[in-house]
Order: sequence, then structure tokens, then C-alpha cells
Amino acid sequence: MRFDEPRLCPVDLGTGLLGAGDGHYRKTFADLKGLYADEQAFSAILAERADEVAYEVTSYTPGGAVSDLIVGVTRMEPGKVGNEYFLTRGHIHARANRPEVYYGQKGHGLMQLESPDGEVRILEVGPQAICYVPPFWIHRSINVGDEDLVMMFTYPADSGQDYGIIERSGGMKVRIVDDGNGGWAQQPNPDYVPRSAATIEKLLHDAGLAA
Amino acid sequence: MRFDEPRLCPVDLGTGLLGAGDGHYRKTFADLKGLYADEQAFSAILAERADEVAYEVTSYTPGGAVSDLIVGVTRMEPGKVGNEYFLTRGHIHARANRPEVYYGQKGHGLMQLESPDGEVRILEVGPQAICYVPPFWIHRSINVGDEDLVMMFTYPADSGQDYGIIERSGGMKVRIVDDGNGGWAQQPNPDYVPRSAATIEKLLHDAGLAA
Repeated sequence: MRFDEPRLCPVDLGTGLLGAGDGHYRKTFADLKGLYADEQAFSAILAERADEVAYEVTSYTPGGAVSDLIVGVTRMEPGKVGNEYFLTRGHIHARANRPEVYYGQKGHGLMQLESPDGEVRILEVGPQAICYVPPFWIHRSINVGDEDLVMMFTYPADSGQDYGIIERSGGMKVRIVDDGNGGWAQQPNPDYVPRSAATIEKLLHDAGLAA
Repeated sequence: MRFDEPRLCPVDLGTGLLGAGDGHYRKTFADLKGLYADEQAFSAILAERADEVAYEVTSYTPGGAVSDLIVGVTRMEPGKVGNEYFLTRGHIHARANRPEVYYGQKGHGLMQLESPDGEVRILEVGPQAICYVPPFWIHRSINVGDEDLVMMFTYPADSGQDYGIIERSGGMKVRIVDDGNGGWAQQPNPDYVPRSAATIEKLLHDAGLAA
């Protein structure tokens, strides 16, 4: 057996990208259809910026085991769709009992967290703030500042992502909007459908935990 | 079942400490006996600074599973013992197939890595450099700058530390010394005893891997 080679990956705060990684994906505005409440405002953005990158993730994946750690950097443009701040699609881990660590590097971000049973937490992730996303929490990041939001992240390499859980509940429970004073506020999402006890039980069961 | 509470832990680059954590350990110079080649120079430091903190680690441990991630910050004083730069004791993980991620925040550091079969890698971990320590690599950090070395880190919560592996080989294979021009250089450690094939095989076997 050979031992895996140690690796140095520089984080470029200017570009918001990880160097010496092996993964890079980009979400354009066209990819984000259906995420925002104000469809008219979203169409106006699409008309001008459909193919521009809304957010991108650069990463390094050393292996696929639960003990391997994927590391990377996420960069998100600042802006709003109507009064709703730019956001990522959001996900729960496909292995739902996997956590994630985010570490704010630049800009003014929020981590929007929602437990399967509908608890909501909003944490401010500015530079030098570590945000621990525990197992089972659905999470998305939001740029409430006026510059790029850049965060470093790491999570177990076998975690996977389930993006559908948010669609199946009609979006996350709250939306993060401009409070009219340049800050942010939570607004209930009228389309939100709480998860059933059976859905929650299945999440726990699939993770090997009794409900 | 309740879902664990998300957590925000600020990293203070001034003090080199993690806020809102649940662990804090300090190593004084008196704790570091036997690590340095120049015993006379070490005695001179002990005479003046025995009870001072040489390095300290603040951390947050959310749980104990392989998929839980311990996060924290390490801070190390700058200085030398004779011509050898200040260093941490160093370890391999008790579950030797667990990796670790370090992320440079302040100062000028090195990660000294040694594979069980005696390969040596020295990586420079300055601000915004992520260092991936793969499974099975013994590692220690070294402050080759003239200010505090501060790094964020994370690793699987069931990893554990085996500090004895370095003692059992008479130290690590190389020492990092002043090159005479304010930089650093590697110097062979004459006391180093290579690990036997049986020792390496046992490490792999204990990690569930055939040799």
C-alpha cells in the first residue's frame, strides 16, 4: 500500500476559489429557476444574466469514505430577486446524519437552517465565524451583503446531497428578505408544507437511528 | 429525538482562540521536555519560561462518531530552542486511517508530515492555505515565523491521538532548524529509528486494512 500524498490548497480571497482542487461547479441564474418568490423579478434577472454564475463551488475530494473530508470554498454573488436575497439551492445530506462545517471568509452571509420537524435557525456567517451544521439540518447560504460571500467548508466525503427535500416541502419555511433598512428579516413562506411524522421517521430510520 | 443545535464559533485572530467551544488545553514549555535536540538551550528556556504557554488548542466537539467533526484553533508561540524552531509534540491518529484538515490563519507555519514508512513532506501553511493531512501520516506543526502561528483545524471526532509513535522512533526523521538566513532547513535526526515492517503492518491491520 502507498500512503496518500498530503496536499496544500490555497484559498484565494480575491477570486473566492480553492486552488489545487479537483472539483468545480457553477450555478448560473438560469439554474435557479423556481427558488425565488418573486417570479417577475426573477424573469427580469434572467433576461439580462441567465448565463452568469450566481454561485460556484471549488473543492478537493481526497476519497469517498465517511472519514475522508471533502474541503472547498463557495463563492456567491451579492444581490436580490425582488426583496429576497440571493441564496443557494440548499440541501440535506443524502446520508442525513452527516454534519458540515462552514467557515466565513469574506462578505456578510447567513446560514439558513431548518430541522426536519420545522425548527428554524438563522446564523450570521461573516469572516472568521465557524458555523457547525449538525446532522439532519437542511441548510442553505444567503448573501445579505453587498460583496461576494466566500466561505470555506468541509464535510464527510460520503455525505451526498439531497436537494429535493426543499422542493418537496414547497421551499424552506422562511424566506430572507430586505428589511427596508439594508438589513434582513425573516418572512414566512406561504407555500411551505411541514414534513409528516412518517417522512421524519424515514430520515432517522435511513440513517440507522430509531425514531 | 431532538436534533442537535447548530453552533456558531468565532475565531479570534488577535488571541488565536476559538469562541463558544467546549475544550481548551495548553502546553507549557515544561510539558515539552525531550522534544528538542539541544537540551542545554531547552534548559535555559525552562529556567525562565517553564510555566508559560508554548501552544494551546481551543475546540468544539459536537459528538464522538466518525462522522462528527471536531473543529478548533491552534495557537503557537514563535521562537527557537537553539537553532530548532518551536514545534508541537505531533501525533498520528489513534485510529490511524483518520485524516485532518488544517487551515492557516496567521503567521508562518510548517506542517511536518511523516508516513509510517519514513517518507517526509514539509508543507508551508501560511494564511489561507488549507493543508490536507491524509490517513496514516504522522504530523506536527512548526512555527518558523516571528509571530504567533494560528491555524484552524478539523478532523473526525473518533480519531484520537497517539503521541507515543514519535517517541518510539526516537523523534521524527528530520528536524526543522534555522538555515542561518532567517529561513528554515531540514536536518536529519540522528536518533531516528525507522519503523519495522511489522509495526507498519499493525497500523494498517488495526485500521481494518490488509497490509
